[in-house]
Amino acid sequence: MLEHGGNLNDAVRRFGRPHAEWIDLSTGINPQAYPVPVLAANCWHRLPEPNQILIDSARMYYNAPHLIAVAGTQSAIRALPRVRQPCRVVVAAPAYAEHAHQWQQAGHTVQEVGYDALAASLPHCDVMVICNPNNPTGAMVAPAVLLAWVEQLAARGGWLVVDEAFGDMLPKHSVAAWSDRPGLIVLRSVGKFFGLAGLRLGFVAAHQTLLATLADFLGPWSVSGPAQQIGAAALADQPWQESMRAALMCAGERLHRLLAGHGINASGSALYQWWPEAHAEAFSQHMAQHGIWVRLLRHGAIGIRLGLPYHEAHWQQLDAALVKWSSKARA
Amino acid sequence: MLEHGGNLNDAVRRFGRPHAEWIDLSTGINPQAYPVPVLAANCWHRLPEPNQILIDSARMYYNAPHLIAVAGTQSAIRALPRVRQPCRVVVAAPAYAEHAHQWQQAGHTVQEVGYDALAASLPHCDVMVICNPNNPTGAMVAPAVLLAWVEQLAARGGWLVVDEAFGDMLPKHSVAAWSDRPGLIVLRSVGKFFGLAGLRLGFVAAHQTLLATLADFLGPWSVSGPAQQIGAAALADQPWQESMRAALMCAGERLHRLLAGHGINASGSALYQWWPEAHAEAFSQHMAQHGIWVRLLRHGAIGIRLGLPYHEAHWQQLDAALVKWSSKARA
Repeated sequence: MLEHGGNLNDAVRRFGRPHAEWIDLSTGINPQAYPVPVLAANCWHRLPEPNQILIDSARMYYNAPHLIAVAGTQSAIRALPRVRQPCRVVVAAPAYAEHAHQWQQAGHTVQEVGYDALAASLPHCDVMVICNPNNPTGAMVAPAVLLAWVEQLAARGGWLVVDEAFGDMLPKHSVAAWSDRPGLIVLRSVGKFFGLAGLRLGFVAAHQTLLATLADFLGPWSVSGPAQQIGAAALADQPWQESMRAALMCAGERLHRLLAGHGINASGSALYQWWPEAHAEAFSQHMAQHGIWVRLLRHGAIGIRLGLPYHEAHWQQLDAALVKWSSKARA
Repeated sequence: MLEHGGNLNDAVRRFGRPHAEWIDLSTGINPQAYPVPVLAANCWHRLPEPNQILIDSARMYYNAPHLIAVAGTQSAIRALPRVRQPCRVVVAAPAYAEHAHQWQQAGHTVQEVGYDALAASLPHCDVMVICNPNNPTGAMVAPAVLLAWVEQLAARGGWLVVDEAFGDMLPKHSVAAWSDRPGLIVLRSVGKFFGLAGLRLGFVAAHQTLLATLADFLGPWSVSGPAQQIGAAALADQPWQESMRAALMCAGERLHRLLAGHGINASGSALYQWWPEAHAEAFSQHMAQHGIWVRLLRHGAIGIRLGLPYHEAHWQQLDAALVKWSSKARA
């Protein structure tokens, strides 16, 4: 299994520091989670039937003609390669490593291609997978370009899979509105922007024929009862969404500036910052010694990714640890 | 997708009776759900890391050497046929329809064989799948017999998959204790006995090599944070388990006697009763008109399955509807 952020248990074991004494910046999950409503008495009890309120809220929020709910984007990333005969797949790189891994596991021929070379590789693949915006670099491809690519791929029965897991901050860059076009598949996640990664809820927006195939592949009851109820509330709560977007924009800029103040030129999205740190292993070790768990990327986008601190004290602890890192580097 | 019980939305649509006015007896889920504890603040928020407390509680409760948690037994039923090359599969019939369906979908050659003929079919298959006890008939195969079958199958690289989703009432009939033997795979469900079907939590107990393959197939974070916490509490709560076993034994016998009082000779388990009703469609229609949603089985074990009522008023409503059914039948 691939390594991922959010693995605080590993940090606890490796450094002998208890859970409560860590600041976990190893994911791109919003630290200000959507406040979970009081749950219906039988949401734990009953088999979770298909939930129209959830689907309607999601269609409205993502502006998508048709979608299905899945138990986290991860389950769609696993399923997609398995409902298609082995073919030639280009995965935009560097990117979230599960995409290439799952297509390979399912027997496809996978090539990882940099964002700059995607257009040139289009004639040579049947499926293209792209994280937009990219995690961790923040690279993006404009919607108009993606839609032109879909047209080319679809003409020969191909797919463009656009993983918009971190797309909530930039709704105008989403291609979900066009996802009923054959060949376009858009993945969305409730975990990141809403800070509800424990819920296991995501969506696939695509043409209805493909959605039916996917739903059959995933089988019944894949999304839990509480995930349905909480997801429906979060996706319909426009005031929370708007104020959170503003708050995260500020926090993201603050993190970017904080790093710049220590000579680190990072890129990314409002929810994370990444840079190709030359001494990534040492940086990660240094931060761990100061109780801060970062994401050390050893493959692909080699470097460091930092999520957002929440409490003011955590911002200051991060700043202090960066001061010590800079002075070490100067020494 | 196959039809299943618990589809109360269908009942609401078809009969125009609102949710709250139905008694849902269409599943075999314990109506007295395990009381959900207060949840940890960040169980919705954080990515659900592997949880050793959950695994330890499950190993103890199921008396299984090694197991992994899955998002409901259903996800294991889907995964198993997909981590094995196409082969000859015998599914004990009649049984929970998803088994045969999923093995077929994954390209295996599936034969459905009655419980009486399983031993004879053993030499002619690579994988045998058996629900023990059976849902809905209650048929069972003794552990010693199953262990002998495992030996034969394993000798040629085969598997015996024992679905013990309804095994909680009869721990002495479980083969989970031997599940580290190569070739034996035991499925367990938290949904039925604990009444937590909305949680999406189950377990696979098997040899560690197979568990590693399955875990890799299922990918990270398949079980939600709340499912981990609630599951760990329920599986460790021996006093609740013991008193619930006693209560369900009474309730199951009461349902059996109630049906017998109306001339219906049913079999099953403490959580459900089934009989090959000759006028199943009419029975289901009659009960629906009285606000009771039953499971009408149109394939396999053709007939009616009834889960347990909870409130005393529901028992009486069921009795009254049965009185009317009997008098109709006599008329």
